[in-house]
Amino acid sequence: MAPWSGITADEMRLLETTFWSAGGSRHAMAEQLGFSKSKANALIAGLVDQGLLAEAGLQRSSGGRRAENLQLHAGLGVLVGIDIGATSLDVAVLRPDLTLLAQHDEPADVREGPAVVLARVRVLMRELLERCGYGARDVLGIGIGVPGPVNFEIGQLVNPPLMPAWDSFSIRDYLREDYAAPVFVDNDVNLMALGELWRLKRSLNNFLVIKIGTGIGCGIVCHGEVYRGAAGSAGDVGHICVDQDGPRCHCGNVGCVEAMAAGPAITRMAVQAAEAGESAMLAECLRVHGRIDAVDVGQASRAGDTAANGIIQRAGNLIGQMLASVVNFFNPSHVFIGGGITRIGPLFLAAVRQSVYQRSLALSTRHLEIQYTPLGVQGGLVGAGVLAMHETLKVRGVAP
Amino acid sequence: MAPWSGITADEMRLLETTFWSAGGSRHAMAEQLGFSKSKANALIAGLVDQGLLAEAGLQRSSGGRRAENLQLHAGLGVLVGIDIGATSLDVAVLRPDLTLLAQHDEPADVREGPAVVLARVRVLMRELLERCGYGARDVLGIGIGVPGPVNFEIGQLVNPPLMPAWDSFSIRDYLREDYAAPVFVDNDVNLMALGELWRLKRSLNNFLVIKIGTGIGCGIVCHGEVYRGAAGSAGDVGHICVDQDGPRCHCGNVGCVEAMAAGPAITRMAVQAAEAGESAMLAECLRVHGRIDAVDVGQASRAGDTAANGIIQRAGNLIGQMLASVVNFFNPSHVFIGGGITRIGPLFLAAVRQSVYQRSLALSTRHLEIQYTPLGVQGGLVGAGVLAMHETLKVRGVAP
Repeated sequence: MAPWSGITADEMRLLETTFWSAGGSRHAMAEQLGFSKSKANALIAGLVDQGLLAEAGLQRSSGGRRAENLQLHAGLGVLVGIDIGATSLDVAVLRPDLTLLAQHDEPADVREGPAVVLARVRVLMRELLERCGYGARDVLGIGIGVPGPVNFEIGQLVNPPLMPAWDSFSIRDYLREDYAAPVFVDNDVNLMALGELWRLKRSLNNFLVIKIGTGIGCGIVCHGEVYRGAAGSAGDVGHICVDQDGPRCHCGNVGCVEAMAAGPAITRMAVQAAEAGESAMLAECLRVHGRIDAVDVGQASRAGDTAANGIIQRAGNLIGQMLASVVNFFNPSHVFIGGGITRIGPLFLAAVRQSVYQRSLALSTRHLEIQYTPLGVQGGLVGAGVLAMHETLKVRGVAP
Repeated sequence: MAPWSGITADEMRLLETTFWSAGGSRHAMAEQLGFSKSKANALIAGLVDQGLLAEAGLQRSSGGRRAENLQLHAGLGVLVGIDIGATSLDVAVLRPDLTLLAQHDEPADVREGPAVVLARVRVLMRELLERCGYGARDVLGIGIGVPGPVNFEIGQLVNPPLMPAWDSFSIRDYLREDYAAPVFVDNDVNLMALGELWRLKRSLNNFLVIKIGTGIGCGIVCHGEVYRGAAGSAGDVGHICVDQDGPRCHCGNVGCVEAMAAGPAITRMAVQAAEAGESAMLAECLRVHGRIDAVDVGQASRAGDTAANGIIQRAGNLIGQMLASVVNFFNPSHVFIGGGITRIGPLFLAAVRQSVYQRSLALSTRHLEIQYTPLGVQGGLVGAGVLAMHETLKVRGVAP
């Protein structure tokens, strides 16, 4: 797609700042960029003329005067955010300021491979766009999260353990058949980190997002930017060893935290407790539904079931043990925990905290906050939208 | 100290690039900065006039034409680099381009507290400066490394476990009595990372430096900058747990890698082996010297001593186990190992590698290189010089 013509570096910085400061006043933005009031006003006027920036609503400033809020112009087009999980598929259409226009989620099985999953993505994209009155040509940028390691530059998965059929498949090329807009692919946890970074308006520079579901992954924000590592596999914390005598993991090693404390491990422990007669509640759940998942364990725990509490405590402690190593190494200001595990409830979070505070150094935990992700289940989609807009600004704003 | 008068942002970038590219040609530097040839030439001429930049020697370029090398002007003054270890003290005087002018190292005990150690630093600084014909007023910047966590902004140690008497002591204020030059204090391993970053001319963006001596610490380079963490304690990997049933560490937890595999642990294992009659060589060493240190274990190993080999293998494997967690999380391109442990020899490095490659994910280790620090024992001092010059440029180059 052609770059916007004649955009200067200063105009570009203003567009980026507008996006990241989500509806800030022109005064605050000029200050942040170190522009004089008159320079900022001239730049803004030019960008409004070009249809890239809009003055939106009015905000009562502290001095009683009204300062105009700025946002990226809705006429620029729409973004599509796609969050492909191991067992779910979320698609959304968003405005350039990330206002949600339409959204759909459904169960999916990523192991069915890219042909099946992406065919469904294609259908959902068309339907959702139509529902908001848009066509393929209105799409400004597409952001996609996938549950595996991604080579970000070329937009391909690299040796993804949960989805081997996707190895080296080009999602970008696949969607190019329908859309002229640029397509960006990233790891799902990196997108959650990007989403939180946007929500925080970049007010935190060094934090982690841990996603716990079928697997365990970590998004890293360092020096105010998402950090992907030398080969795109940074944050692969699921295979950190927490017990030298632990069970064997599908990766070949023993005692990986993912094998001992992620969703499937919690389910396995619950089924064992039910079958061993340790919990009437879990046994009843198994009898009625034929299975027990993490949410059931959380429900039993809230109802006072001792076995369920023990399982949650154990999983939380193991994840806390892994996190303690990571906190000693990285010294983040915040750790946000997201993914399916959050539906278990507060006991899990308490167990994680206890374990981290006990095992990490005092200096690293003195100001550390550990909490569930504020964006919750929307984190992946918001992150996909941030990826789409942020990267589109980069590729469209500069001459090739 | 007053900022250099009238330095523009572009001139500043040119000075910084000159320092970091260590004697690069004006052509290469202009290209790196995106300056036109004529703009670069004008800027350089101005900086040469101001006595900040010098054209040094000639470098035959690929086309057969001669391109002038640039370096920071020697007339700017000298840097002092100080590397305070747990048991040693190194002081050096360096040119702005980090050419070593004078150096002295001696044993020291950091536990004696700042009054004793810094009084000695003060004497050594004066002596070394005199030896090169300089006085206090010629000092441009001072960089100091200390073996504990540092609040970098205020230049103070925070709860340092190895040197409690230094807690909240202001090294900066102490040296201000003698020197008008700015004083910068950082953790010793961060300085090793900074030193390697400078040696590499910033050609690697994401790597780690592990220092193993009395303790174990890690310097982190992320997105091309040293990363210090939210509270300045990033890289505190010595207390990562590698054995849930391991011995108790001075930090209160059990199985910390530092308690099981750093210098004192190696010495302890060697004494045990000597006393248990498992090694004639180590027993002889203990008899003659009354002690065994890591170098002795290395010598015995090279002479084929089985017990010594076992000790080194065990220490290397435990450190590799800790590193495997860190590599899974951070996915660095390189891990450089430095500190006293390097004197043990190649067997230790082999054991570390074996353990990391076995325990880390394939994607994280596919292009990972693990080696001893190229700067070796000079790493801390070079890093102190880099800190002094880099930060001095920052504070002197901009109006307050």
